[in-house]
Amino acid sequence: MTDIGIIAVGGYNEMGRNMTAIRVDEDIIIVDMGLRLDRVQIHEDVEIDKMHSLELIEMGAIPDDTIMKQVNGNVAAIVCTHGHLDHIGAISKLAHRYTAPIIGTPYTVALVKQQIESERKFGVKNRIIPVEAGGIYQVNDEVSIELIRVQHSIIDAVFVAVHTPAGAVLYACDFKLDRTPTLGEQPDFDRLRELGQEGVICMMVESTNAKRAGKTPSERIAHDMVRDVLLGTEESDVGMIVTTFASHISRINSIIQFAEEMGRIPVLMGRSMDKYVVTAKNMGYIDFPDNVEIYGKRKDIDKAFKKIMKEGKEKYLPIVTGHQGEPGAILSRVAKGDTPYEIESGDRIIFSANVIPSPMTQANRYALETKIRMRGGRIYDNVHVSGHAYREDHWELLRLINPEHVIPAHGTIEMHSAYIEMAEDAGYVLGDTVHLLRNGEELYIEE
Amino acid sequence: MTDIGIIAVGGYNEMGRNMTAIRVDEDIIIVDMGLRLDRVQIHEDVEIDKMHSLELIEMGAIPDDTIMKQVNGNVAAIVCTHGHLDHIGAISKLAHRYTAPIIGTPYTVALVKQQIESERKFGVKNRIIPVEAGGIYQVNDEVSIELIRVQHSIIDAVFVAVHTPAGAVLYACDFKLDRTPTLGEQPDFDRLRELGQEGVICMMVESTNAKRAGKTPSERIAHDMVRDVLLGTEESDVGMIVTTFASHISRINSIIQFAEEMGRIPVLMGRSMDKYVVTAKNMGYIDFPDNVEIYGKRKDIDKAFKKIMKEGKEKYLPIVTGHQGEPGAILSRVAKGDTPYEIESGDRIIFSANVIPSPMTQANRYALETKIRMRGGRIYDNVHVSGHAYREDHWELLRLINPEHVIPAHGTIEMHSAYIEMAEDAGYVLGDTVHLLRNGEELYIEE
Amino acid sequence: MTDIGIIAVGGYNEMGRNMTAIRVDEDIIIVDMGLRLDRVQIHEDVEIDKMHSLELIEMGAIPDDTIMKQVNGNVAAIVCTHGHLDHIGAISKLAHRYTAPIIGTPYTVALVKQQIESERKFGVKNRIIPVEAGGIYQVNDEVSIELIRVQHSIIDAVFVAVHTPAGAVLYACDFKLDRTPTLGEQPDFDRLRELGQEGVICMMVESTNAKRAGKTPSERIAHDMVRDVLLGTEESDVGMIVTTFASHISRINSIIQFAEEMGRIPVLMGRSMDKYVVTAKNMGYIDFPDNVEIYGKRKDIDKAFKKIMKEGKEKYLPIVTGHQGEPGAILSRVAKGDTPYEIESGDRIIFSANVIPSPMTQANRYALETKIRMRGGRIYDNVHVSGHAYREDHWELLRLINPEHVIPAHGTIEMHSAYIEMAEDAGYVLGDTVHLLRNGEELYIEE
Amino acid sequence: MTDIGIIAVGGYNEMGRNMTAIRVDEDIIIVDMGLRLDRVQIHEDVEIDKMHSLELIEMGAIPDDTIMKQVNGNVAAIVCTHGHLDHIGAISKLAHRYTAPIIGTPYTVALVKQQIESERKFGVKNRIIPVEAGGIYQVNDEVSIELIRVQHSIIDAVFVAVHTPAGAVLYACDFKLDRTPTLGEQPDFDRLRELGQEGVICMMVESTNAKRAGKTPSERIAHDMVRDVLLGTEESDVGMIVTTFASHISRINSIIQFAEEMGRIPVLMGRSMDKYVVTAKNMGYIDFPDNVEIYGKRKDIDKAFKKIMKEGKEKYLPIVTGHQGEPGAILSRVAKGDTPYEIESGDRIIFSANVIPSPMTQANRYALETKIRMRGGRIYDNVHVSGHAYREDHWELLRLINPEHVIPAHGTIEMHSAYIEMAEDAGYVLGDTVHLLRNGEELYIEE
Repeated sequence: MTDIGIIAVGGYNEMGRNMTAIRVDEDIIIVDMGLRLDRVQIHEDVEIDKMHSLELIEMGAIPDDTIMKQVNGNVAAIVCTHGHLDHIGAISKLAHRYTAPIIGTPYTVALVKQQIESERKFGVKNRIIPVEAGGIYQVNDEVSIELIRVQHSIIDAVFVAVHTPAGAVLYACDFKLDRTPTLGEQPDFDRLRELGQEGVICMMVESTNAKRAGKTPSERIAHDMVRDVLLGTEESDVGMIVTTFASHISRINSIIQFAEEMGRIPVLMGRSMDKYVVTAKNMGYIDFPDNVEIYGKRKDIDKAFKKIMKEGKEKYLPIVTGHQGEPGAILSRVAKGDTPYEIESGDRIIFSANVIPSPMTQANRYALETKIRMRGGRIYDNVHVSGHAYREDHWELLRLINPEHVIPAHGTIEMHSAYIEMAEDAGYVLGDTVHLLRNGEELYIEE
Repeated sequence: MTDIGIIAVGGYNEMGRNMTAIRVDEDIIIVDMGLRLDRVQIHEDVEIDKMHSLELIEMGAIPDDTIMKQVNGNVAAIVCTHGHLDHIGAISKLAHRYTAPIIGTPYTVALVKQQIESERKFGVKNRIIPVEAGGIYQVNDEVSIELIRVQHSIIDAVFVAVHTPAGAVLYACDFKLDRTPTLGEQPDFDRLRELGQEGVICMMVESTNAKRAGKTPSERIAHDMVRDVLLGTEESDVGMIVTTFASHISRINSIIQFAEEMGRIPVLMGRSMDKYVVTAKNMGYIDFPDNVEIYGKRKDIDKAFKKIMKEGKEKYLPIVTGHQGEPGAILSRVAKGDTPYEIESGDRIIFSANVIPSPMTQANRYALETKIRMRGGRIYDNVHVSGHAYREDHWELLRLINPEHVIPAHGTIEMHSAYIEMAEDAGYVLGDTVHLLRNGEELYIEE
Repeated sequence: MTDIGIIAVGGYNEMGRNMTAIRVDEDIIIVDMGLRLDRVQIHEDVEIDKMHSLELIEMGAIPDDTIMKQVNGNVAAIVCTHGHLDHIGAISKLAHRYTAPIIGTPYTVALVKQQIESERKFGVKNRIIPVEAGGIYQVNDEVSIELIRVQHSIIDAVFVAVHTPAGAVLYACDFKLDRTPTLGEQPDFDRLRELGQEGVICMMVESTNAKRAGKTPSERIAHDMVRDVLLGTEESDVGMIVTTFASHISRINSIIQFAEEMGRIPVLMGRSMDKYVVTAKNMGYIDFPDNVEIYGKRKDIDKAFKKIMKEGKEKYLPIVTGHQGEPGAILSRVAKGDTPYEIESGDRIIFSANVIPSPMTQANRYALETKIRMRGGRIYDNVHVSGHAYREDHWELLRLINPEHVIPAHGTIEMHSAYIEMAEDAGYVLGDTVHLLRNGEELYIEE
Repeated sequence: MTDIGIIAVGGYNEMGRNMTAIRVDEDIIIVDMGLRLDRVQIHEDVEIDKMHSLELIEMGAIPDDTIMKQVNGNVAAIVCTHGHLDHIGAISKLAHRYTAPIIGTPYTVALVKQQIESERKFGVKNRIIPVEAGGIYQVNDEVSIELIRVQHSIIDAVFVAVHTPAGAVLYACDFKLDRTPTLGEQPDFDRLRELGQEGVICMMVESTNAKRAGKTPSERIAHDMVRDVLLGTEESDVGMIVTTFASHISRINSIIQFAEEMGRIPVLMGRSMDKYVVTAKNMGYIDFPDNVEIYGKRKDIDKAFKKIMKEGKEKYLPIVTGHQGEPGAILSRVAKGDTPYEIESGDRIIFSANVIPSPMTQANRYALETKIRMRGGRIYDNVHVSGHAYREDHWELLRLINPEHVIPAHGTIEMHSAYIEMAEDAGYVLGDTVHLLRNGEELYIEE
C-alpha cells in the first residue's frame, strides 16, 4: 500500500505563488515555487531580490513553505513546470532550504539559473538538472518524475507526472490544448491518453479559465490577428510599436517574421526581452533573421530610438516591454517622453497582451494609455489569446486522464468553483473525488 | 450651388430601425428602412406582418417617416445596403408610400422581395432594381447612386455613394475592413481611396463598435476558431450541433466545409436557414457538396432528427437556427425536448454567434443554455467575430474618405460619442464638421 | 453520545429551493421547503399548482427530497422559518410525504395554509402548529425546537434552534441584524448570545450577501428614502404609483402612512397584495387608516383605476404588484395600457424593490420600464434596502453564536466562498469546522 | 438686445477641471477654476504647487484658458461656487491673469485664500470678496451676480445666477436637492422657483449623476447609516477608525456627535482634516464638544496614536484622511504599520466615502484594503450617499427653472447624453435648446 499526500503549499487560495508538494510515502516532490507579484506591487519601494523569505511569506508574496516542517518526509526533488515567475519566482528564496535538485526542461532551468543569479539575499546551491519534455527523472526505485509536453504562453512547458507504485500523480497546470501552435509541437496527447489508461490517482489542475465557456483559441489565432493589425492597413508608413510578454517566445517569433514581411527592421528592446529571447535563441528554440536588433540597456535603447527617429519610424518595428504599464519599462518611458522616440498623431501602439486583472496593473495601464493617447497614438488592445485552458478543454483533459481524484489549483475558491461544477458534470463528487484544498492543507490518499 | 440635406429618419437615437434620407436639391434618396426587433420583443403576441405602419412607428419598431412630409423634395429612389432586418425589415411597411424604385445588390433585393411577399397588411408594388456592387444607378442628369463593395456578416453588402454636382455623399454603415474574407472579395479600397480624392461632402457612418479598441478580427479568424472547435478534439464522436446567423452565408459555407472534413453530413435546419442559404445557393454565391441536407419545415426537421438519432449523431452535423434562444427556433425546441434529437452528457452545442446585448435576448439565451446544461450538453459560446468595424478601422476609413462632414449613425448618443471623440482626434470639430443628429432632424449643407 | 446529521437537501448549490434536514440520532427535523422560481420561469406555460413533485424536482424547481429515503431516521417535524416562497413554496408538493406536523410562527403558518389551499395536485393534510417567536415545540424528551425572533423583509421571521442532548443546532437563514426596524422588534440578541454561551454544535447560515462589504442598512433607511421620494418634491400633484413586495408588510405599512401624510388615499392592488396584507391586518400585525382601499380582483382593480382617473390621480397613491415586471401583474398591465390608468409625462413610478438578479427578471423589468418610459413615466428605481445580512453582520453573528461547525447555505459555491473566507478570518478551517455541502450530502457530527 | 456667450473653458469634455465663462455683451464672468486630479495622478513625482500653468494645461490638469484671448470682452469677476478642488484648484494657477475680484461664499473664499497661500509658483493678488449665499454682487449697472443656496457635500455651496438685462444665466453645478440636510438649510427652492418665473436664458448644469435613476438620498440617510455602523453592534469595544472627506463638514460633524454617543473621544487626524474642519469651526459653521482632538502634523498624529494604543483603542474614535488610499494619508500609514496604531483582528475601518471611479484611485484603495485585511481589520465600505443630483432631481430642477437653453457640464459626452435624453423628455431639442458644448467652444445667444 502506498501512502500519498498532496500538500497545497501556495496558490490554492489565490493567483500567483504556486507551490505544491506531492508526498509518496516519505519521499516528497515539490512542484513549482512561484511569486505573487500583486502582493509586491501594493507596497512602494520593495526590492524583492534583497528581501528575506519570511518577510515575503508574511507579505503573501511567496508560498508559506514553513508548513513543510509538519509533513512527514524528505524532499527528493523540486520540479519546475515552466519559466513564468508565478512558478519559479520563489526558487531563489526557498529552494536553498531543501537538499534536493531542481529539475525542469532546458529552457525552464536556464531561466531558473538566471533567477538564482539575480538573487542578492540567498545563495542557492541546489543542483540543477535539465530534463527534456518526454524525459524521466528517477527519484528512487519506486518513484520517478516524468515531464510531458504541453503548450502554454512560454516555450518548453510541461505537465509533471510523479509515478508511484500505486499509479501516477499528475500536476497539470498552466497549459492550453493547442493543436496548431506556432512554435514547438502540440501537447503530447498520445502520452496523456496512455497515462489515463495506466491509471492516475490524482490530478492537480489550474482553474484559471475554468469559468470561460468553450475552448481557448489557438496561438495561431493570435498570430493571424497580430499579422492583420500590422500588415492589413491603408496606413503602412506610420510609426508602429508592438509590446508583448518578453517570455512569450512564439509570439515574438511571429512578430519578427511580420516585421520582415513589412520590410521593417525588428528591434527588441528592454531588459527582459534581452533575457528571455536571447536565451531562447542561444538554446536554439528560435532563429532570427540577421537584421534583428536587440537592446537590453537603457543607453543602447535610447541610442537605437535616436537612430529610428533619424532614419524614419516607418523603417523599424520596435518590440518592447511595458504591456502592463510597468513604470520604468520601455513603453512607459516612451509614453512619458523620456526617450528620443516621439509618438505622433496616427502612430500605432499594439498591445499583443491582455491586461492582468489586478487593480494595480489596471492603474498602470490606464496611466500608460492616457499618455499615449495625449500624444496622438492609436491603441490596438488585446491582440492576444490566452495561454490557459478554457472550460471545455478542461472537460476533455479530465475525461482523457480520468483521475481518481482531482484538485483545482491556481486560484481562489470562486475560480475553483467553476472547475468543481464542471467536474461534477463529469461525475466527480465534491469532498470525495474532487477536492477543495486550502493553502497549508494536506490531502491523504491511501492506495 | 447645390443644396444638400441629410435627414436622420431612424437609427440615430437607437440601434435598429435604420433609415436615412439624402436630399440633393429636391431629389431625395432614401437609404435603408429597418426594423428594431427589441421594440417588438418587449410585447407579447405581436404579429408584425399584420400590423399597420403607424402602430409600429408608435412602438418605436420602425422609422418614423411621417417627418418626410416636411422635407422639401421627392423621393427618387430607395436603396438598401444589405439584407439584414435592421436595414430592410420596414420596407414592407413603408416603401409603398413612395413612388420610387427599390435598389440594391442582387442578394439584397432577393431578400427584399421575400420580405415583401411575407407581408400581410400592405401591398408593396415598387419596382425592384438589382445593381451589382460596383455599379451605378442614374437618378437623373445630375444625381447618381453608386454601390461600393464592402464586407459584413452577410454577403453582397455595400456602401452607397450619392453623387451630386458638388461631390459625393457616402452612406457607410454595417461594414468591416476585412482583408481576408472567406467568401467574396475584400472591400473596394481602391474605389474608396479614389472617392476620397474626388471629394466627399458628407459621410454617415455606423458607430456600433466605435467604442471597441483596435480593429475587427477578420472572418478568417472566426473560420479558424470554428474549425478548431469542431475538429480539434479528443472526443470526435459525440453529438455536435452548430447554431449561427442564418444570413451569415460565409460562416455557414465554412461550417459545411468543416462537416465534410469531419466526415459528417451537414444538415441545415430552420425556416430562415432555408430562406437565406437556398437563396444564396440558387443565385450562385455559394456551392454545396451533394450531401448537404436542408429542412425548413417542422415536420421535415423532426423527421431528419429521427433519422439522425437512428443512424448515429456522430454521422451528422446539424446547423440550426436559435442562437439567440428565440422561442420556437430549432435549438430551443431541441433543448426543450420537443424534437426527436436527444442531448446527452458530453454532446456539444456550438454557438457561432455573439449574444445580442438586449435583456430580452439575454433572457432567451439564459433559458436556452440552462436547458441544454440540464441535459448534459457542453456549450461553446461566442465562436464568432463581429461584422462591424472597431475604432481603428473607423480611423482608417475616415482618413481614407476624408469627408467634409461626418455623422455617426446606428446608435445612441453614448455610442456616437466614441465615434465623435475619434473624429476629434482626426481633426473634426463637433457641431462644425462632425455632427450629432437626432431622429427627425435634417442637416443642411450648402456647397 | 449524540449522532447528528445535517442533510443539505436543497439550496446548497443554488438560490431558491431551500430545504435542510437536521437529524438527531433517528429524529429528523426538516427546515423549510422552498421553490426556485427561476427554474420555473425558463419554461413557457408552466402551471406549478397542477404539477407533480417529481416533475418539479427534475426541473430543479423544488428540493430533491428523494434523497431522504437514504437518511436513517423519521421526520418528526417540518419547520418553516418565514413565509417567502423560496422557503415555503414546496410545502404543498412535498409535505404530504411525511407524517409530521408543520410548525411556524403564526403569520408564516397562515401563509403555509394558503399555499396548501391553492394546490391543485396534492392534498396536504399535515397538522399545522403555530408557535410564537420565542416559543418552543417539544419533539420528544430529548429534542425540542425553538423559534428565535429575527428581522427580515417579511414579518414574523425566525431562526430555528434544534436543541439536542449535545447542544443546539441553529438554522440561521434569511435575516438581517436590524436594530431599528419599522415594524416588530429587533432580533433577539439576548437569546442569541445566551445560545452561543450554551454551546452551538452547528450553524447553517445564508451566504446571500456575504460578498457585500459592511452591514445591511436598516429598514429605517428604506422607510426614510421612500418617504423622501414621495414627499420631498416640488411636483406633488403628479400621478404616483408605488410598487413593492406584497409580502413586505413593514414597507407597505410605511407607504400607507406616507400616503396619509401626502393627503392621498392609499389603494392596494393585486392578488398577492390582497393576500399578504389582509392576512397581516386580520392577524393584527398592522393596522390601517379607514380610507385604505384594497383590491385583489382584476375587475375591481380596473374599476378603482377608473375612479382614480376620474377623481384625479393626485388624490390617490396606488400600491401595486409588478415590481419585477411580472407579466400579468398590475404594473405591467398599467404599462401596457390595459387598465383605465393612464401614465402621462411626469407621472412617477416608484420601485421600492431591487431587481432580482436573474436574466428572466431583468428582461421582464426592461420590457416594463421601456413601456413606462415610452408613456412619459419617470422611474424611481431601487428605493429599497436588502433584507439579508451583509458580511460584517455575518461576522458579528458568527462570533456571537460561536458554533463548533458552520455551513453556508442558500447559494452557489461562489456565494459560499465569501462566507468561508470570512469564517476563516474568524478562525474556522474549511473541511474541519466550516463546511461546503452540496445538495444531497449529509454532514455527520458526533458529539 | 443683449448678446450673451457661454464659453465652455473646461470640464465639458471630462470630469474635473471645471471652468465656465459667461459673457454679457463685453463683460465676462468666470465661474470656477478647477483641477483634474486624475491627470496629475498618472504622473509620478509631480509637484503641482511648483508647476507653471501652461505645463498643467498641456497635461490636461487645469482648464485651457488660453482660449479666453479670442473671447471679445473683459473679465469682470471670478466666482467660485464651492471649495472643492475641481472648482477652485486652478485658481492659484490662473486667476492672476485676470484683473478681476474673486467672489464666493465665506467658507469658499476662506479655502480659496488657503489655496493661494500654498502656491509656490505664482503670486495671486486678486481681490477676494466674500458674499453670503442669498447675496448679490453688482458687476455694473446692468449685470449682477447672485449666489443661491444649495446643498452639496461641502458647506456653503451655491448656484450662480448672472443677471442681465435679458434675463438670468444660471450656473447650477455640484448640488443635491436635499430637503433634510444635517447641517445648514435646504436649497433655496423659493428663490429658484421665482428665478424660473422671472425667466432664465440659459442654465449650465452638472451631468455627474444624470445616469442614475431616481433621486439622491439625503445626507440624513448617510448620517443614519454611519450611526448604525458605529453604534449598532454587539462588539462595541473593538478598535474603530472612520475615514471620510475632510471637506465634508456635515458628515464629520455627525461622526463627532456619534463619538460622543459612543463615549469615545473623537480624534481628527490629517493635514486636510485640520485645514477644512478647523476653518469651518473658526468661522462658526460647526461647533465641537470640548474633548475633540485635532492633529494635522505627522509628529502629533503619531504621538496621539501612541496615547490611543496605551489608553485603549475602545476609548477613541480616530477620524482620519485616506479614504481613497492616497499614499501618505493617515489611513495608508496606519495600514502599512508606519504609525503606533496597530490594527488587530476584528478592528473596524469605516469608509464613509465612495471610491472615486478612476483606475488610479481604485489601485490605491485596493492596496490599502489589502493591507488592512491582512492585519485582520474589518472593512465597512461606502457608508455614504452622493452629493450630486440624480436624474429625477435634474428633472425637477429643469422644470422649476424652465430655462430657454440648457447645457450639461462636468463630464464626458457619455455623461451628458443621459442629461440630454432627460431634457428631451422634458421637451428640449438637441442643438436647439439643449446644447452639447466641447471645451473651447462658445455658444452665442442673442436675446
